[in-house]
Amino acid sequence: MKILVVNGPNLGLLGKREPEIYGSETLAEIISRLRGYAADRAEIQDFQSDIEGEIVHAIGSAMNVFDGIIINPAAYTHTSVAVRDAIAGCGLPTVEVHLSNVHKRESFRHESLTAPVCVGQIMGFGSNGYQLALDALLAHLNNRKIGE
Amino acid sequence: MKILVVNGPNLGLLGKREPEIYGSETLAEIISRLRGYAADRAEIQDFQSDIEGEIVHAIGSAMNVFDGIIINPAAYTHTSVAVRDAIAGCGLPTVEVHLSNVHKRESFRHESLTAPVCVGQIMGFGSNGYQLALDALLAHLNNRKIGE
Amino acid sequence: MKILVVNGPNLGLLGKREPEIYGSETLAEIISRLRGYAADRAEIQDFQSDIEGEIVHAIGSAMNVFDGIIINPAAYTHTSVAVRDAIAGCGLPTVEVHLSNVHKRESFRHESLTAPVCVGQIMGFGSNGYQLALDALLAHLNNRKIGE
Amino acid sequence: MKILVVNGPNLGLLGKREPEIYGSETLAEIISRLRGYAADRAEIQDFQSDIEGEIVHAIGSAMNVFDGIIINPAAYTHTSVAVRDAIAGCGLPTVEVHLSNVHKRESFRHESLTAPVCVGQIMGFGSNGYQLALDALLAHLNNRKIGE
Amino acid sequence: MKILVVNGPNLGLLGKREPEIYGSETLAEIISRLRGYAADRAEIQDFQSDIEGEIVHAIGSAMNVFDGIIINPAAYTHTSVAVRDAIAGCGLPTVEVHLSNVHKRESFRHESLTAPVCVGQIMGFGSNGYQLALDALLAHLNNRKIGE
Amino acid sequence: MKILVVNGPNLGLLGKREPEIYGSETLAEIISRLRGYAADRAEIQDFQSDIEGEIVHAIGSAMNVFDGIIINPAAYTHTSVAVRDAIAGCGLPTVEVHLSNVHKRESFRHESLTAPVCVGQIMGFGSNGYQLALDALLAHLNNRKIGE
Amino acid sequence: MKILVVNGPNLGLLGKREPEIYGSETLAEIISRLRGYAADRAEIQDFQSDIEGEIVHAIGSAMNVFDGIIINPAAYTHTSVAVRDAIAGCGLPTVEVHLSNVHKRESFRHESLTAPVCVGQIMGFGSNGYQLALDALLAHLNNRKIGE
Amino acid sequence: MKILVVNGPNLGLLGKREPEIYGSETLAEIISRLRGYAADRAEIQDFQSDIEGEIVHAIGSAMNVFDGIIINPAAYTHTSVAVRDAIAGCGLPTVEVHLSNVHKRESFRHESLTAPVCVGQIMGFGSNGYQLALDALLAHLNNRKIGE
Amino acid sequence: MKILVVNGPNLGLLGKREPEIYGSETLAEIISRLRGYAADRAEIQDFQSDIEGEIVHAIGSAMNVFDGIIINPAAYTHTSVAVRDAIAGCGLPTVEVHLSNVHKRESFRHESLTAPVCVGQIMGFGSNGYQLALDALLAHLNNRKIGE
Amino acid sequence: MKILVVNGPNLGLLGKREPEIYGSETLAEIISRLRGYAADRAEIQDFQSDIEGEIVHAIGSAMNVFDGIIINPAAYTHTSVAVRDAIAGCGLPTVEVHLSNVHKRESFRHESLTAPVCVGQIMGFGSNGYQLALDALLAHLNNRKIGE
Amino acid sequence: MKILVVNGPNLGLLGKREPEIYGSETLAEIISRLRGYAADRAEIQDFQSDIEGEIVHAIGSAMNVFDGIIINPAAYTHTSVAVRDAIAGCGLPTVEVHLSNVHKRESFRHESLTAPVCVGQIMGFGSNGYQLALDALLAHLNNRKIGE
Amino acid sequence: MKILVVNGPNLGLLGKREPEIYGSETLAEIISRLRGYAADRAEIQDFQSDIEGEIVHAIGSAMNVFDGIIINPAAYTHTSVAVRDAIAGCGLPTVEVHLSNVHKRESFRHESLTAPVCVGQIMGFGSNGYQLALDALLAHLNNRKIGE
Repeated sequence: MKILVVNGPNLGLLGKREPEIYGSETLAEIISRLRGYAADRAEIQDFQSDIEGEIVHAIGSAMNVFDGIIINPAAYTHTSVAVRDAIAGCGLPTVEVHLSNVHKRESFRHESLTAPVCVGQIMGFGSNGYQLALDALLAHLNNRKIGE
Repeated sequence: MKILVVNGPNLGLLGKREPEIYGSETLAEIISRLRGYAADRAEIQDFQSDIEGEIVHAIGSAMNVFDGIIINPAAYTHTSVAVRDAIAGCGLPTVEVHLSNVHKRESFRHESLTAPVCVGQIMGFGSNGYQLALDALLAHLNNRKIGE
Repeated sequence: MKILVVNGPNLGLLGKREPEIYGSETLAEIISRLRGYAADRAEIQDFQSDIEGEIVHAIGSAMNVFDGIIINPAAYTHTSVAVRDAIAGCGLPTVEVHLSNVHKRESFRHESLTAPVCVGQIMGFGSNGYQLALDALLAHLNNRKIGE
Repeated sequence: MKILVVNGPNLGLLGKREPEIYGSETLAEIISRLRGYAADRAEIQDFQSDIEGEIVHAIGSAMNVFDGIIINPAAYTHTSVAVRDAIAGCGLPTVEVHLSNVHKRESFRHESLTAPVCVGQIMGFGSNGYQLALDALLAHLNNRKIGE
Repeated sequence: MKILVVNGPNLGLLGKREPEIYGSETLAEIISRLRGYAADRAEIQDFQSDIEGEIVHAIGSAMNVFDGIIINPAAYTHTSVAVRDAIAGCGLPTVEVHLSNVHKRESFRHESLTAPVCVGQIMGFGSNGYQLALDALLAHLNNRKIGE
Repeated sequence: MKILVVNGPNLGLLGKREPEIYGSETLAEIISRLRGYAADRAEIQDFQSDIEGEIVHAIGSAMNVFDGIIINPAAYTHTSVAVRDAIAGCGLPTVEVHLSNVHKRESFRHESLTAPVCVGQIMGFGSNGYQLALDALLAHLNNRKIGE
Repeated sequence: MKILVVNGPNLGLLGKREPEIYGSETLAEIISRLRGYAADRAEIQDFQSDIEGEIVHAIGSAMNVFDGIIINPAAYTHTSVAVRDAIAGCGLPTVEVHLSNVHKRESFRHESLTAPVCVGQIMGFGSNGYQLALDALLAHLNNRKIGE
Repeated sequence: MKILVVNGPNLGLLGKREPEIYGSETLAEIISRLRGYAADRAEIQDFQSDIEGEIVHAIGSAMNVFDGIIINPAAYTHTSVAVRDAIAGCGLPTVEVHLSNVHKRESFRHESLTAPVCVGQIMGFGSNGYQLALDALLAHLNNRKIGE
Repeated sequence: MKILVVNGPNLGLLGKREPEIYGSETLAEIISRLRGYAADRAEIQDFQSDIEGEIVHAIGSAMNVFDGIIINPAAYTHTSVAVRDAIAGCGLPTVEVHLSNVHKRESFRHESLTAPVCVGQIMGFGSNGYQLALDALLAHLNNRKIGE
Repeated sequence: MKILVVNGPNLGLLGKREPEIYGSETLAEIISRLRGYAADRAEIQDFQSDIEGEIVHAIGSAMNVFDGIIINPAAYTHTSVAVRDAIAGCGLPTVEVHLSNVHKRESFRHESLTAPVCVGQIMGFGSNGYQLALDALLAHLNNRKIGE
Repeated sequence: MKILVVNGPNLGLLGKREPEIYGSETLAEIISRLRGYAADRAEIQDFQSDIEGEIVHAIGSAMNVFDGIIINPAAYTHTSVAVRDAIAGCGLPTVEVHLSNVHKRESFRHESLTAPVCVGQIMGFGSNGYQLALDALLAHLNNRKIGE
Repeated sequence: MKILVVNGPNLGLLGKREPEIYGSETLAEIISRLRGYAADRAEIQDFQSDIEGEIVHAIGSAMNVFDGIIINPAAYTHTSVAVRDAIAGCGLPTVEVHLSNVHKRESFRHESLTAPVCVGQIMGFGSNGYQLALDALLAHLNNRKIGE
């Protein structure tokens, strides 16, 4: 199994600023920990960009290369029809992750343009969301029950 | 750790009807599999009711008895201020689960009244959502990273 | 043919209060008259509850027992996603009845959450609506034209 | 009892096109079957037009000639204040019929401009709706209970 | 004068949890203090339920037994057409009470479905609202001015 | 305790016109009765103006002079951000009163711009609302329970 | 000066039905009285139709034949973009008249599609509106002040 | 007949500024011309204020002194519930006038808070609107047809 | 190939009025030019009416007679559910044309009721839109690429 | 250059209350500092009122007396069509100032009725906004670049 | 004539994936066919990017280099004010093309931010839309009628 | 003090096109003039991009390098949650500038996604806005009053 992990705008600075708030874990460390967690269950490749179109391009290029996608579209969750179209177009099973529980925040964050074209959505568990998404995606791809 | 699993209206018939659509797994089997998955990490107690007020009461009574709640409010997700108030009032960390990806369905299912008072939300992964919720909740309660 | 007639909140007091307004006919008398009208065309069983979840449960339990449902969800017409899900889930042909013409009343009564999952809707004819619903439902179940 | 049956736009082609979908019954046959069903209970006169203003005129001219109206305003249900005003103005008891369950269709079909000035509404039962409407209207005009 | 005091969902736990926030006064103590305040002016009977339909039933059964109702519908204020219909149907003068000032909270709490069928509304004064409601209701029932 | 009672537009004519509808009690008489009711519990000073800005000024000038405010903003309830800002700015505990139950009236009267900056709101009890407001405000200022 | 007076749907029955409500004056009598009032100030030609498209056609044909238009579009006021386009297209100064004060009626009657392309609007004065419209239109066409 | 003519904010400067746009006619001249037009049919008294509350007061004081009111509320048309309440409260027949056709302007000018409590509305005819309003109001007060 | 060209309200006067604005080309000349452009690729028959119902009827009658429809519904684009139903019902491939770019005009012209049941839409190119629509429709009917 | 500085409701109490929040600077001191900053570049005259109509009047009277206006309409920013009309009517270049950043506050403060008729808007810089507004207005009036 | 053809996000993968759905034609082939169709009527230069800002830049750079633009903004049609501003700013006649009929899709695709600044819009004809757009644009640039 | 000046999409062409409208001043000249104005009060570094994600990146990288930001997000003001998140995340005091008064333009430009996370906003003063923003930002950073 080959999984693409896509991270959207502003996520490149995780752990680099305001560590007392967001924790001292960088995106690289999150990905590294995810790789360890995946172990031999899946090969993880990650991609981060602040640029909507680059994310669109990365998703479009994932077809035939990856088996599934884990995406944290960050701000583009709420504004990007282009990312939505890319996910729908590439046809790969995709899991949407958010570090925070967006329902606790401004109302314009309550609607997700990307969620309707994903398999499912996980939010509110900080960087643990990536591990959960991996388990969910692998179970989906392998069509099996977790815990059996 | 003692976890209360609450299931809302119409979930009592899971696996009993339209098995070709919803699968042949009953709610009892889902809970049983969850108990197995929890193993000695947590004690699982479950509660199902079609009645909004009974769910309110179960949540209200969970304080001092349980460490956290996993809830699938089903239809009450979108209509019940009472369940929201119960979750907020009991103060226990709560994870919201949905079998389906509600963002693919009617627009009145896109807003969750309960999500803003939960730790996080997991949707779209069928009954696997309960296992994911358990992992998420235990990590939250133990304040630790999954996969470390 | 076995038909379940479900009546929602506040309908248990029909004929018992304000008879000068709502008429002196009780719900029992309406059901009795409906049974007489059904004669040997159908067996009528009725259920009334003020509790949303009990209505959900009654509908869920009707599968494999009844051939169709006549429902007057009363106030829950406009607020209950749970009753909607129950009707859709049980898969039985259902006819929605309202005593009054809800389009003459407050705008929040103009939208029905349950109608989209029913075969059809009859409103505004007082208790005659139940007879009309029975004729409509039996014709639907027998796939025949009324008056032929 | 003399009843006017009014049919709105596009209904003149019933049975003439796409019979595999809409059935092979023409509007003339529906009306003919309705006359047979009415028997000596009522005299049925029917009027069909694609033109909103002709429907307005037919309703306006019904006063003092007919005892009641059965109307399927079709598309004008959702757009015609003029037909609404005609029904309200003529003062005859009117029953609104729809072949399909409009609540299953586009949201602009969920609101009826004409229903608030009718006695009641029947929808979703195909051409059987006309027979049901006749029974409902005659019971209303005769102020009696169906089935007694 | 015989007054029914109805309390809605989550109010049964008043004083039992988070006393540093909601105060240490239980619902039983509030009712007891209200009885003392009523003295021989009125007989107080109270009813609490988390279940919407039980509240509907209690109100429906109050007719001919009570002279008026004091109700704190809590969360059902904003979601229950059924409770509204029950109040309107029973015909008893009813006063709506809220412990908090709902206008300071989420916007979905700003509209009350029940207030339009009540005599009046009192909110924001904590448990003192019950005493104020009693004075207001008794003055209304006795058709007299307070302070004369 | 020194309480300022503010009355908004059109309230100066209470009792002077349409006494068969609004009663024959003038605003002066209402205030006089309120003074009698207050007795030695509080000193009442009243202010009425049809001019929004004069009401703003009166509230702004109340700081350090009064202990609390009872206000019936009448029409300005629904349109005046300025009165809202004045109440919030002066910092005095304020109780909002309405003679009628505004929830029974036009929908533009259902939202109150001023209520979110008040302690609480009392509506629907006619001029009795002033006495109730006084009791509520004094209990709030004295931090005590009514009826103890 | 040659003025076209256009009357929309349902107005042909004025005075013919419910004379106790709408008065016994027929449209013919209203027009006749208007002709007398116009005297030699203007030649009045009138046109009534229940059919939107005929009204569109009449307005389109008025160019180069008439100097101005008085129109009571009745129900089409609120639904007809076609009549609006006809008025704007023909370029003749047009005055909109309504017998009733539409702002006292249902909210869908508060917006006029035709008013923005008219010189002005007169409503609420019954059939007197036609005389007032004539005075207004002639003053506009003659570019003079009334009463000088 | 004694008629009060009320003019709202910014109307005091008519004719004094931008005469090339608004004409050189001052408000005094408009009123003077109106008096001439009224001749012995009515006594005209006029009142202009930029202050909402003064307009409220003038209307409130008109009862028993005047027979009817002509009002151009200007900007307060769209924002003043207080002026609306004053008109409704004083009970005098009132005609609303606007110099411009507000339906050609910003959408917030399309709704009138005051029109629903007036007899009727005249707009778009510049200062001629006052003469038209006078004719309309006198005909209304005398219950007679114009031109007979 | 036999193509029906339908033109809606107010289009019959093209070229007849305000030629300096809309050009001197009449609808007859546009159709004539379209016939020349079609040459032997298609037979063009045209129909214009200001009456919504006549357009509905023309479309309904086109089945089995024509291969496709080009329609400029003009004002009915935005208000006619009946024309929409006619297009959907007749089942012929239909291309919607507008002379102007409706997105530059009033917001009520931005939504098209008819477009969702058409193959496609062409707007903003004046009468050239008809030629473009013909090319588009013929390519669609012949299932071929333009320019090959 | 002669500049009128207009301050709206509640601003007269600046510095007089809650100095720990709003600072100890009074409106008089702000104006005084502004005069010093203007030096010989402009003559500053200021006007404060809590009364909407007085602000309207002050703006209307500024024509021919002042060269430009700096206005902080405070609460009237969001509710006063009258102040908007006054600014548009007087024709003087006007700069809108707000002490706070209104976009951080309640949503009803996000829309400004007055901004569309001003040259520009400055918000969020406390009393420094007045100096910035002066620089902006003088540059606008002198048609020059700041810093050249 | 020199025409710039701009294609937005996800369009670079046309023909490369899901050929059974979108056809086997790549964007390069579409452009190539368009060049052949243009022949010596116009020189075609094309630009595709998934990045909103690159599209903005390409349009901005087109001024003085190209005579007109054909653009398929894809997802940015509905979200990009920046592309709208670029089209408006560059001043070149622009034709908007969509492969699909967006009115058949989700409601958020019904509004186009870019259409109001284009000459016209063509949608629903697959890749034929580019040829149609070219004809439309050249006719517009040459100010001539197609087919003459 | 080190200030980053960020300019968004389409601003790179300032002065290069339509100089008769936007003036002949290029962005380079505006920045240069701003540097001159800043003199030794601040070091100005500028960044322009049409690409949303590059702006996000520039803001994210400003932390620890700059003391504050002046930003003209242009079109992204109204659509970019990503830029908003970048400003909020970097924590630097930011001033938002617009050349035009956006409140005079289309309604979708009235709401700013970025303003709520800025110190303040300046709009409508053309390129002078940058100088004003610099003064405002430096005063904010130095916590001092302008003009003292």
